[in-house]
Order: sequence, then structure tokens, then C-alpha cells
Amino acid sequence: MQHMWLSLLSGLCLNLVFLCSAEEGLEFPNFDGKDRVMDINERNYKKALKRYDLLCLFYHEPLPANKGLQKRFQMTELVLELTAQVLENKDIGFGMVDSQKDVKVAKKLGLEEVGSLYVFKDDRVIEFDGELSADTLVEFLLDVLEDPVEMINNAMEVRAFERMEEDIRLIGYFKGEDSCYDILAFNFFFKVAKHLSLKMNEVNFYEPFMEEPAIVPGRPLSEIDIVEYVTQHRRATLRKLRAENMFETWEDDMDGIHIVAFAEEEDPDGYEFLEILKDVARDNTNNPELSIVWIDPDDFPLLTTYWEKTFKLDLFRPQIGVVNVTDADSVWLDMSNDEDLPTAEELEDWIEDVLSGRVNTEDDDESADEPENPDSLRDQDSNGNF
Amino acid sequence: MQHMWLSLLSGLCLNLVFLCSAEEGLEFPNFDGKDRVMDINERNYKKALKRYDLLCLFYHEPLPANKGLQKRFQMTELVLELTAQVLENKDIGFGMVDSQKDVKVAKKLGLEEVGSLYVFKDDRVIEFDGELSADTLVEFLLDVLEDPVEMINNAMEVRAFERMEEDIRLIGYFKGEDSCYDILAFNFFFKVAKHLSLKMNEVNFYEPFMEEPAIVPGRPLSEIDIVEYVTQHRRATLRKLRAENMFETWEDDMDGIHIVAFAEEEDPDGYEFLEILKDVARDNTNNPELSIVWIDPDDFPLLTTYWEKTFKLDLFRPQIGVVNVTDADSVWLDMSNDEDLPTAEELEDWIEDVLSGRVNTEDDDESADEPENPDSLRDQDSNGNF
Repeated sequence: MQHMWLSLLSGLCLNLVFLCSAEEGLEFPNFDGKDRVMDINERNYKKALKRYDLLCLFYHEPLPANKGLQKRFQMTELVLELTAQVLENKDIGFGMVDSQKDVKVAKKLGLEEVGSLYVFKDDRVIEFDGELSADTLVEFLLDVLEDPVEMINNAMEVRAFERMEEDIRLIGYFKGEDSCYDILAFNFFFKVAKHLSLKMNEVNFYEPFMEEPAIVPGRPLSEIDIVEYVTQHRRATLRKLRAENMFETWEDDMDGIHIVAFAEEEDPDGYEFLEILKDVARDNTNNPELSIVWIDPDDFPLLTTYWEKTFKLDLFRPQIGVVNVTDADSVWLDMSNDEDLPTAEELEDWIEDVLSGRVNTEDDDESADEPENPDSLRDQDSNGNF
Repeated sequence: MQHMWLSLLSGLCLNLVFLCSAEEGLEFPNFDGKDRVMDINERNYKKALKRYDLLCLFYHEPLPANKGLQKRFQMTELVLELTAQVLENKDIGFGMVDSQKDVKVAKKLGLEEVGSLYVFKDDRVIEFDGELSADTLVEFLLDVLEDPVEMINNAMEVRAFERMEEDIRLIGYFKGEDSCYDILAFNFFFKVAKHLSLKMNEVNFYEPFMEEPAIVPGRPLSEIDIVEYVTQHRRATLRKLRAENMFETWEDDMDGIHIVAFAEEEDPDGYEFLEILKDVARDNTNNPELSIVWIDPDDFPLLTTYWEKTFKLDLFRPQIGVVNVTDADSVWLDMSNDEDLPTAEELEDWIEDVLSGRVNTEDDDESADEPENPDSLRDQDSNGNF
């Protein structure tokens, strides 16, 4: 069962052809072999920009000489091809821009980060910095296609809006085209909706997991005002790691570290711990030095055991710790007693110790008290304590 | 960009090697080429059963002669190999059982459905009939490893229990080993927890999305009583399609049809429609002829456009219809006016029309009023009306 060329794949998915089901309605797409991804160059980029509602460009290094790296390159192409096939009817163009051959085009289009995917919609550019899988990419692009503005018409829809606590949200009263007042809510999805050019009274900004909004200052508000405000307040006190922008979130560290909390929302302990984290975040929302990255292991099945190994943790339980992003060194709060999750106050004391440097990933390396046993994931590599 | 051999893949995922991030902590696993999946036969199956906490056997047809099918076969092996690698430290064995060569072993182990994956845990067998991707399989196996019984210790954990409305849940008071009364809650996760052998007063059964539980009859309750009750009440009035058992759900049709509702929970309209569906389900929980399959398109990005094409729908909005599972023919309720989702009563009237046969997938084929335009997904192929 050796398939060396496929040693590059991290997640495969295929339909259950062996199940021989006679029923229809759940057919996963197979790549049909048809080329849909364009080779973008100086001659065709303008036409491509005009031609599609959305143009999706992968900015890449030249084809490597190394065979192994070539396979990876082909896998990336394949992810793009499958995505293009799945979204064939959605008027989305896909292309590759070579960072060496197409250096001029890249400059004109403002492509900067090699390995990133850039989405052009109207006169805006959206950078995708998430997991490069067909699932994540298709979901992301379908979201970009959707109108980011929702009319809130009734109490049920207000509840739906309130439930989206993981996102940055803006909401405003404004005078609609039909001259009656509506409530307008939108996810700040990389761009501000055109609807904002309509007159309005006030726009409220909800940081993720906050119950109370902030009022975006300035009157009348321009699109620029709002973009600027959101950009400034983008890094939330508690932010969830999501496949669609996981690398962007991870690169946005705080002085080389992340405070990372693992909590499974569907598990009673995890849920309880998450509620405590939310309390802590609400108490400290004005502390610019604090941003906790919450990871729900359920969202990243392929990374769960990697994290357990790297951080020497048991992820069947909630965990919180400090991770040094340059070497993945970490220390974790001892919460080995299931019955006894820390209170919000205890957690705040520990966070204070982290922010002041009393708890840090380096101390841990000196103390040789705890034997390191790579086989036992349950040994906590922790020196945080109450 | 032709990779014919890969035309079999439906979803690929690879780490962003081109992103060249200097930060650590988010490394997706790559298959390392090491064989971990065993070839199970008469000589080794007993040993394998003893050796692991969990034994995961894929029951497959013999290696096909056709090259295309051989590739599919290799992809399945690869999904299993990557899953085995990711879960290497979890004491899970993986093996393949050939339905031709190993017919005796299959019989002894009770393997029946070729193409299914069977998980052996203690003296129980769990059949996996979901999406065969490494993500879904790893998540499923981690769930199987986890204790299905949770102690409910405080109000927060009761809230967490109440939130799990998508699952079948059992909850009971029982006398714990430390002689004080606890509340015991567990997901009915293919097996009944051993904890049930403890004395208890009563076990309540929550059907998915129901607010009121039923009391499992009989006193004292045996494990068999509970398993029997759950098996009988397994098909819920409203059930969510989930990757981990999607084929099982789909095969469990009602006289060849499914009532299918599409609703994005994260979208205000979708959320509102889902709440209406829940009302309908609660009103009709005792109707054994009714079971609505709820699909959240967000959970199946690779299938979304396939469904749009197959059913001629716009899945940016909520939809409900009847699908014939043998030919995927369908009719959909006209809800084209965004402002005007049907009320629970109107939906119940329509469902009554479906159950009585007044609305069905065949009538639709006769009426040639609506032109079929495969390019326009927004044309509703619907003859259901109020």
C-alpha cells in the first residue's frame, strides 16, 4: 500500500463507490479531467477580470525541479481544478499566476504573498489564507458570492443574528429604497456592502462573543470610516480558529505567542469552559494585549492528534496554554481534575501571569522535574498553577 | 492540467506548502508511505481483535481488473492509511477484508455490506456508513473512543446537554458508585454505555429537536430494553443529514421518497425556516409516516452545486421538496418570495399533500408548462403550492 507520490496528500475524500447504493441524490463529484484553470499572463489577465463575476487567482512559485515538490504543485492544481468544476455554473474564473514568469501581472494585480489565493470581486480583492482543500475553498467562494447584507425582518431573524457570535458583525438602521426604515445587518466579510451608501442613522459593531456592541463613531459614516474602524478592531479578544482563514489568524500572533484554548463545543465540559472563556473575554475586551485563539478540535480532525503530540495534551478535555509560534513550544494550565474547571477569575489571574511573563514557554524548558514521555499524551507539560 | 488517474478524487486537501509560513502549530499530516493497514485473513483476525482497543475493518470487493476502478480502490486504501497514521497513538487497528478471498472471516465477523467499514469495540460492532474521507473517519473514530456517557454536574452542563438537539439523547438519574445521586446523560452512540448496569430510576429519551422527552418504559430497565426502545424510535421526525452516516440516512427512505429541507442554519432565512420545521416536527412527532431530512448546505460544500443542478434549486435560500431516491426526480415547494416563508400550518398542509400523494414527483413530469433550462438554477421545478 505504498503510494509515495501521494505522500503529499493530507486529506482525501472520495465517494463510497464500493457501497453500490442504488439510491441517488448524494453523488460526490469526481474530477472529470477537463482543464478549467487558466494560465494567467499579460495577454489575458484583463479579459479574465472582465469576463467573470469572481476571478480566483493562485499566486505561486515556478514549477519546482524537485519531483516531490512537483507532486505537491500538481495537487494544488487539482484542488483548484476540482473547485472550478464544482462551481462551473457560478461564473467564477480560476487562474494561476507564476511569481517568476508573470511578475509584471502580479505587480499590476497587487499580488504579494506567494502561495496565497486572491479573489477579485467588483473592484475589491479578497485574500484567501485558509486550508487549501476543495471543501474549504468551495464553501469560502460560495460565501463570497452570497450577499453579505441581510435584511432583518422579524424577531426570529434577530435571534439568528444574535446567534452568529463567532463573527464580526455590523448592524444598522437605515432608510431603505422603499422609504421605510429597515434594520440592516451584515457580516463584515472582507468587504463592506454597497448598501452602506444608503442613508443611515447608526452602525453598531459587535466583536465576536460580545453581548454589547460598540457604536462606530462618526456621522455621517462613509464606507472608509467603517472599513477603518473594523480593520482597527479586527483582532478579537476571543477568536475562533476557522479553516477558511486559519493561517491568517495564526500568523497574527501577539509578540510571538498565542494563548490557545481547546474546547469542544458539543461536549459538556468543553461547552462550560467556552462559557468561562467568553466571560473572561467580555471582562477584558478593552485589553489590546489579550487575544485568545479558541480551537474546537471537532473542526480539525486531521490536526487533533498532531496537536496532542506537539503540545503533549489530551484533547478529549478542555485545555488552555501559551504557544510559542516560532517553535511550537508551549505550557499548559493544569486542569487535570475534571470536576474543577477554573473560574473566570482564576483564569484571569493565570492570563495576567502569562501577559506579565511569569508564565512562559521558556521556564518550562529549565524545569526537569517532569519526565518527558512521548508515548503518554496525558502528561501535561505545564507549569501554570493556581 | 490533466491528471486522469485522479479523476476519482472528490475532495482533496493539502497543506499550504506554498505559503512558506515560518510559524509552527498548524501542520496538516502528509501520508508518510508506511503501511499500517493490515491484510486481514483467517490466520490473523483473532489476534487483531485482541490486540487493539478498536479494530476497524473495511469489507471490500476483490481488486477490480478495470484500471479506473483500481485507482478508486487505491484511493480508499489511502484514506484508510492516512487515517491509521493520524490515529497511530490511539491503539486502533486497521484492516481490509476481501469479500471473495476472506469469505469465511467475513462470515465469522458478521460483515455483510460490501463497501462498509466495521468498527469492533469490546464485544460490539459499529457500522460506518458515512463519507469515506480521512476527516470524517478520524472524527468518527475519535468520537467512538470517547466515553459516550457524560456526568451532568451543573447548570451549565445541563445547558450543553439541551443544546445537543440534533442527536438522540438519553438521560437518567442513577445512583453512582460513590453512593450519591447523579444525573447521567449520554448520547446513544451506536452502543449503550456500560454505566447503565448501575441502578437507576428512570431513563428519558429525547428525539432530535424535541423539547419534551419520552420515558423509556419498563422497570427495572435492562440494556436490551433500552437498545430496543432506541432502535424502534431511531428514525426521527426531523433528522439532520450528517457526513458520518449520510448514506445510512439516505438509504432509510420512506416508500422510496424523502422529504428534504435545505436550510443554512447560519443564515437568517435558513434559521427561521429551520425553526418552522422544528415546530412542524414537534406537532407531528407521533406520525410514523413523517421524517424530514434536513440538509445544511454548509456541511456539504462539494455537494451543494450538485444538488442545485440535480434538483434545479437555488440553495442560497431555504427549500423543501420531495425527492424520489431511485431517480432523484423531485418537486419543490414554491417559496420564491423571500419575505414570505410558509407558516408551520401551511407547511403541514403541504406535507399532508405529499403524504397523501397529491403532491408527488410524477405529476411534475407531465406538466410541460415550465421550460427546462439547465443553465438557470433559479428556475424552480416545483408544482407544490398553497
